Amino acid sequence: MNIILLSGGSGKRLWPLSNDIRSKQFIKIFKGKDGQYESMAQRMYRGIRTIDTDAKVTVATSKSQSSEIHNQLGDNVGISVEPCRRDTFPAIALATSYLHDVQGVSEDEPVVVCPVDPYVEDDYFKALKDLADLASKGNANLTLLGMEPTYPSEKYGYIIPVTKDEVSKVKEFKEKPDEETAKEYLKQGALWNGGIFAYKLGYVLKRAHELIDFIDYTDLFNKYDTLTKISFDYAVVEKEPSIDVLRFHGVWKDLGTWNTLTEAMDENIIGKAEEDDTCENTHIINDLDIPVLAMGLKDVVVSASPDGILISDKHQSSYIKPYIDKLEQPVMYAEKSWGSFRVLDVEKGSMTIKVTLTPGHRMNYHSHERRDEVWTVISGTGRTIVDGMEQNVKAGDVITMQAGCRHTVIADSELQLIEIQLGKEISVSDKKKYKFDEE
Amino acid sequence: MNIILLSGGSGKRLWPLSNDIRSKQFIKIFKGKDGQYESMAQRMYRGIRTIDTDAKVTVATSKSQSSEIHNQLGDNVGISVEPCRRDTFPAIALATSYLHDVQGVSEDEPVVVCPVDPYVEDDYFKALKDLADLASKGNANLTLLGMEPTYPSEKYGYIIPVTKDEVSKVKEFKEKPDEETAKEYLKQGALWNGGIFAYKLGYVLKRAHELIDFIDYTDLFNKYDTLTKISFDYAVVEKEPSIDVLRFHGVWKDLGTWNTLTEAMDENIIGKAEEDDTCENTHIINDLDIPVLAMGLKDVVVSASPDGILISDKHQSSYIKPYIDKLEQPVMYAEKSWGSFRVLDVEKGSMTIKVTLTPGHRMNYHSHERRDEVWTVISGTGRTIVDGMEQNVKAGDVITMQAGCRHTVIADSELQLIEIQLGKEISVSDKKKYKFDEE
Repeated sequence: MNIILLSGGSGKRLWPLSNDIRSKQFIKIFKGKDGQYESMAQRMYRGIRTIDTDAKVTVATSKSQSSEIHNQLGDNVGISVEPCRRDTFPAIALATSYLHDVQGVSEDEPVVVCPVDPYVEDDYFKALKDLADLASKGNANLTLLGMEPTYPSEKYGYIIPVTKDEVSKVKEFKEKPDEETAKEYLKQGALWNGGIFAYKLGYVLKRAHELIDFIDYTDLFNKYDTLTKISFDYAVVEKEPSIDVLRFHGVWKDLGTWNTLTEAMDENIIGKAEEDDTCENTHIINDLDIPVLAMGLKDVVVSASPDGILISDKHQSSYIKPYIDKLEQPVMYAEKSWGSFRVLDVEKGSMTIKVTLTPGHRMNYHSHERRDEVWTVISGTGRTIVDGMEQNVKAGDVITMQAGCRHTVIADSELQLIEIQLGKEISVSDKKKYKFDEE
Repeated sequence: MNIILLSGGSGKRLWPLSNDIRSKQFIKIFKGKDGQYESMAQRMYRGIRTIDTDAKVTVATSKSQSSEIHNQLGDNVGISVEPCRRDTFPAIALATSYLHDVQGVSEDEPVVVCPVDPYVEDDYFKALKDLADLASKGNANLTLLGMEPTYPSEKYGYIIPVTKDEVSKVKEFKEKPDEETAKEYLKQGALWNGGIFAYKLGYVLKRAHELIDFIDYTDLFNKYDTLTKISFDYAVVEKEPSIDVLRFHGVWKDLGTWNTLTEAMDENIIGKAEEDDTCENTHIINDLDIPVLAMGLKDVVVSASPDGILISDKHQSSYIKPYIDKLEQPVMYAEKSWGSFRVLDVEKGSMTIKVTLTPGHRMNYHSHERRDEVWTVISGTGRTIVDGMEQNVKAGDVITMQAGCRHTVIADSELQLIEIQLGKEISVSDKKKYKFDEE
């Protein structure tokens, strides 16, 4: 099975756990099979692997997410990096062409496209497999998964099928309706459109070539920023007469706000926190090292991370966005392909950061123009390379680096260090990367 | 005017801003005359200085608070350090004997005793001066300040005066009553007993010698741990027939819980925080560098410090103590006589701390048996002394210290450094102090 997971934009609605570089799909709040917390992305990926251990999974996403995806999903996942955001049609065209030209998937094979972030259970993955099988049979050019509605929602677009059979031809699509109209749709056996569909690779590749002038994946990648923003629904679905829909009866939820997210949590508390016995329907997610104590709260979500602290009435939390847009807070925590970093202290003229590298991983070889740095290794073993000179390092070792000097660190075991940046202008953009081979 | 300020125990009820070494009187939450925030202790001290610039102020307190007192009140304040806690009679006897034997105050001079932490306004300091003047006149052995009650409180003891005159003989004292009894007291013109009183120094010194066998201040200090715990009320006040009381009509509040404390705040927010417009009667005190956002909260207090985060319904917050007693959280922030420190990161085998020294101040000259340390100066200038060798330091300088090595740092301008402690057993008790002269 070939699956394209669409991994979308930033998740300001779930601040402070999501931020400009950490989208909601990467927040670890679900108890996994091994008792470890996992993110929506990890949960989705694990589910796919359970139903099909050989599934070829490709994540279509932006460059800013690719470190995080490798960190959470490992190196077996393919990534189709969008050089810039151009809506779903160009993204799916690029990922499809990536599957064909880079991964060597044939035009006859089925491809399933779905978002990475809905909350689903095991039957969903079974449905994805059924969807791929239907696409493979070729009864229609596109096969959609339609969600059996649980209430007349105004949040979703609707699919009106010809019959109420498990698989039916699609009669028409409807935009997000008001509640009364939604009730009418439900009587007709309408289904929610969750943006999940399957096709034979060649079908979308043909559509892409009809709508975009490009030779192959590389060419499409290079001219990506010149493409018009257009959704897959508008560019393809609405113009296609041959569409089937498969009914899905299981759990499928959009956890886009603190209110819906906390509903899906297995426990009321994640992290170091306590609620007194007068708290009701109150959830705490504490990503900080310090304890949180909640007393006498009702219908409240508390969320704390190195980026900030939110305390909100659950209903009110859906109005968070304008408040976060106003915040001028630098990113204080991030997961990278090589590990993670956390800002410990910011002062005029200095910044103190804790860096954790996973075994076998390394930072880019790089230099800074306008700041000196001091590394103190606090745990683990590895090697530093400073201006071409390699040195073994362990806890207690101190490495000082003047501005301009090229440096990196390679972890042999998990390695942690405290990095102190010193300079008048400390900025993430002050970074020049080098290939080590060039030295 | 001689004033003894009683500065009492830890303030767990105001966690996380108060902790074992930081009592509630040191929390900076009041807007001072210059726009800077000041603590209850600073507010009280400033008020005393305003009414009497020459006031001789002595704080009776424990050793653990003396650094904080010098940090907040400066070096002009006297401190009578209680070697251990022995209730108010031994504490007042020790401070009185300190005034006599160390500060040279004569037996004829009046002394005013009052707690450091009530919330008061300007008229209170005028009343303290009146109290000293009454004691000076010597119409009674003890002169109390009696607070005009605003409601029949069950929280206070009551003073029943003979008349309703501004100054009256005291008829009797009453323990904390129930509400009905309190209403009866109010009809009789009763006053709250706030533990504020004045006497001629010689009076309490005589009582002290009658009840305790000691020669002078030094002798009393040395045998302090052998003394019986007994309150001044029980040991002296209840046995004294000659007591006057002065009525006080102004503001006098005990800010011992988050509920009462937030009532006295000038603004709803201190620190980096925002409330949406659906918040009602919600106070935020944020001592962290990261932003707090509160949405849709009603009658809630949010308080965040390096020690932890409290979110509580205001009424419920008075039941906080058992929850804090359970917490096993090391102190993450403290003000010392030489400046302050803040724990930035704790890992197995390492601790990272930010140290700020005020100009002209220095740490003790000390060593550790079981940990190495690395200092990186991030701002300011000063000198380090490591195993007797002095060196000028500035931002960017790195000093490494092996276990056993003696070291200190002296700030010439305000100096900040990041201290990284490395070792298998990191403990605050692993510290040996030296006099630098001995080197």
